[in-house]
Amino acid sequence: FLPAWCMERYPRAVKKILDDGHEIGHHHYLHEHANTMSAEEERYWFQRSKEVIISMTGQPPRGYRLATYRFSRNTLDILIDEGIRYDASLMGDDVPYAIANTRGRTYEIPSHYGLDDWPHYQFSRDFNTLMPIKSTRQACEVFQEEFDAAWEFGGLWVSVWHPFLSGRLARASAIRKLISYMHDKGSVWFATLEEIADYLAELERTGQWHPRIDQLPYYLDPIPELGEVEAENAT
Amino acid sequence: FLPAWCMERYPRAVKKILDDGHEIGHHHYLHEHANTMSAEEERYWFQRSKEVIISMTGQPPRGYRLATYRFSRNTLDILIDEGIRYDASLMGDDVPYAIANTRGRTYEIPSHYGLDDWPHYQFSRDFNTLMPIKSTRQACEVFQEEFDAAWEFGGLWVSVWHPFLSGRLARASAIRKLISYMHDKGSVWFATLEEIADYLAELERTGQWHPRIDQLPYYLDPIPELGEVEAENAT
Amino acid sequence: FLPAWCMERYPRAVKKILDDGHEIGHHHYLHEHANTMSAEEERYWFQRSKEVIISMTGQPPRGYRLATYRFSRNTLDILIDEGIRYDASLMGDDVPYAIANTRGRTYEIPSHYGLDDWPHYQFSRDFNTLMPIKSTRQACEVFQEEFDAAWEFGGLWVSVWHPFLSGRLARASAIRKLISYMHDKGSVWFATLEEIADYLAELERTGQWHPRIDQLPYYLDPIPELGEVEAENAT
Amino acid sequence: FLPAWCMERYPRAVKKILDDGHEIGHHHYLHEHANTMSAEEERYWFQRSKEVIISMTGQPPRGYRLATYRFSRNTLDILIDEGIRYDASLMGDDVPYAIANTRGRTYEIPSHYGLDDWPHYQFSRDFNTLMPIKSTRQACEVFQEEFDAAWEFGGLWVSVWHPFLSGRLARASAIRKLISYMHDKGSVWFATLEEIADYLAELERTGQWHPRIDQLPYYLDPIPELGEVEAENAT
Repeated sequence: FLPAWCMERYPRAVKKILDDGHEIGHHHYLHEHANTMSAEEERYWFQRSKEVIISMTGQPPRGYRLATYRFSRNTLDILIDEGIRYDASLMGDDVPYAIANTRGRTYEIPSHYGLDDWPHYQFSRDFNTLMPIKSTRQACEVFQEEFDAAWEFGGLWVSVWHPFLSGRLARASAIRKLISYMHDKGSVWFATLEEIADYLAELERTGQWHPRIDQLPYYLDPIPELGEVEAENAT
Repeated sequence: FLPAWCMERYPRAVKKILDDGHEIGHHHYLHEHANTMSAEEERYWFQRSKEVIISMTGQPPRGYRLATYRFSRNTLDILIDEGIRYDASLMGDDVPYAIANTRGRTYEIPSHYGLDDWPHYQFSRDFNTLMPIKSTRQACEVFQEEFDAAWEFGGLWVSVWHPFLSGRLARASAIRKLISYMHDKGSVWFATLEEIADYLAELERTGQWHPRIDQLPYYLDPIPELGEVEAENAT
Repeated sequence: FLPAWCMERYPRAVKKILDDGHEIGHHHYLHEHANTMSAEEERYWFQRSKEVIISMTGQPPRGYRLATYRFSRNTLDILIDEGIRYDASLMGDDVPYAIANTRGRTYEIPSHYGLDDWPHYQFSRDFNTLMPIKSTRQACEVFQEEFDAAWEFGGLWVSVWHPFLSGRLARASAIRKLISYMHDKGSVWFATLEEIADYLAELERTGQWHPRIDQLPYYLDPIPELGEVEAENAT
Repeated sequence: FLPAWCMERYPRAVKKILDDGHEIGHHHYLHEHANTMSAEEERYWFQRSKEVIISMTGQPPRGYRLATYRFSRNTLDILIDEGIRYDASLMGDDVPYAIANTRGRTYEIPSHYGLDDWPHYQFSRDFNTLMPIKSTRQACEVFQEEFDAAWEFGGLWVSVWHPFLSGRLARASAIRKLISYMHDKGSVWFATLEEIADYLAELERTGQWHPRIDQLPYYLDPIPELGEVEAENAT
């Protein structure tokens, strides 16, 4: 998941990622916060980033992750209109599920903050994230525990690693060791999220899986049950 | 302790909890903050949640825990009026005690932030809890140390675990191991808080225990001793 | 170091502390923040707390620690006027030193945040200290490392432990083990701060020690060197 | 890197540092935040600190690190005008690179927050850095992991250690052990940043190294690509 602005500035990195067989997902233009935008703005940036992806990778994006997971009330409409096959911005389960509204649905392939390098490595006055930076041993302990549990129960493990955090020599080195550990443990499918979405669709088509479906948005207005208070109090 | 709004939305989860022999305590309607409400509002939400508990569990709630432990100046009045047999919102001791005011009293079965999964696992921009997420090994070290000390000295150990935090695969797995550890150590009474309240009442009835009694509220006004300053300075 | 208001409310705890041979230091009345008070207010609360100490311990306080280490511009004047023999509110060194102004001087017996249980165990929404609570193993690792270094180089180790933090069963248990460790290591003087102040005075009297002296306040006004900017820019 | 105001107050410490063969870099006058200053102010303080360095060390500063890494839009102009041979305020890489603008360029010898003692040891109400203080074992684990990775891949390791944090007995002791570890590991060049800058210049002169060059400032105005939105929306 690359912000399109980064792709425009670093075409050689994009090429290298594609040459290595990776998928490039839609991550907006410059890490916009979708939930503070109008529907028009969000759609504008979606389109603009999509065009960058098409022109640089030769195909439209299949997957989507919002900057800092800020899913808006309009996001799902856009994903459905655009035929995005999976979203990876929510954290509602340990396994894939579906998100739907009156227009249609898409898959949700969830991650988790424990698998994101941000809570482990980020220290920044500008972001007001003043947290004690972990050693790679402490961070990878969390990553590996999550992996071991996913392995034991047959689940999903999706990392969210930022180049300016996990790209440090010591941290990248630790990741390499962690991936070796996964390979050695065996019975693990290393896949792009697109391949996972393909697999989910096949499972559904053949009736082997019926995803849990989350209807969105949870509420458009303040929760209606809460509104009854004023009504009752007014009587 | 389930917010009643969650019970209404997830009746199957409620049924499963009851079928497994667990007690469901009163945790307000939708995690309201009692100490920022009027007495009327707090009482309204108390009643409304109580009705959900009665209709879904077949009996009124025996125990109570406030959302984020925010005990208000009116909470104890409500608990006494409603015949709630124990509160579990305060952290004033390692062992049960009683809280009382001029109207009556109830038991306090305290927990502690160290036994709450929040400080160990929570990372949220919306809650401004930007903390490095712990591994289950690090979190369970705290839980187990507290258990071992309660075991050694004959104390109380009350966990506060949230489904969206401790319900992750790796964390639930670690909890299972921790509970096995407790079983193996032996001489442990696994009980609902209701059973503990029953036991405390029996101990009191037979004169074997005289609880420490905290008179509430500590102060209705600014602490009177402090008020003397102005008086003295005025002379 | 007990706030005098706590002493008034818990006379049995005070008696028990004195019976065990401990010293009770001056810790203000109710954890006031001296550096946000006028000189008159600070002096008022000093006197009022001093009277409680005299009436409950039979002698005036010898030592002083400010609530949350908030030394004010007037604090040293008060300490000198009142004949306080040592302060324990500052963190300017690993070993005792002296603080002085034009009126006189007193000893500073410094502590450090690493030896305070606050950064290790405190989690509070009201104090905005949203930190992952440590296990006792992790907290005592810091305490013991500091002890081992003080032992190796012949330094000072002063704990700052709060009853509502370190008084939990597991933590008090861990402290007991840490103190045993210190005893077993040997060549350690376990002393009240008063005894340390006596010893410092004796070392000075016999010419064996010349304390480093910090002149206070560091600056009454904005640092004068910085003021030159405007002067130079104005020319 | 010493603030010049500190040098003026502690001339004996400056002499000791120089006698031991260390380099003293430019660290502004009193830890000013350059990115909140006008160009004139930043230059004023640069000059004033430079004069202190010349008078106390006998030569002008060769290197520069901004207080809390707050590089301003004017900083590079000043560094070029003053002939500063390297900056050490940025974190853009694991290895040295160059920063340039239309006037010229200088070397960047980057450090990293993981190598700064601040995220590991700092706890301060005044700075709002309420973080659980690490043990030296936990902090040095981060330092050593970074060192081991730099060693394995042939990289750079630059510590940022503050006397009031890393100068505590236990921490200084742990640093001594860490440096011994580095010595024992072998094939390590312990160098001042000035020596590294000399070496980089030699590598460039002999054509053995072509540094990556970062053009600064990244943007003078809001990122121009973002400005197109309004333009497009206006049509």
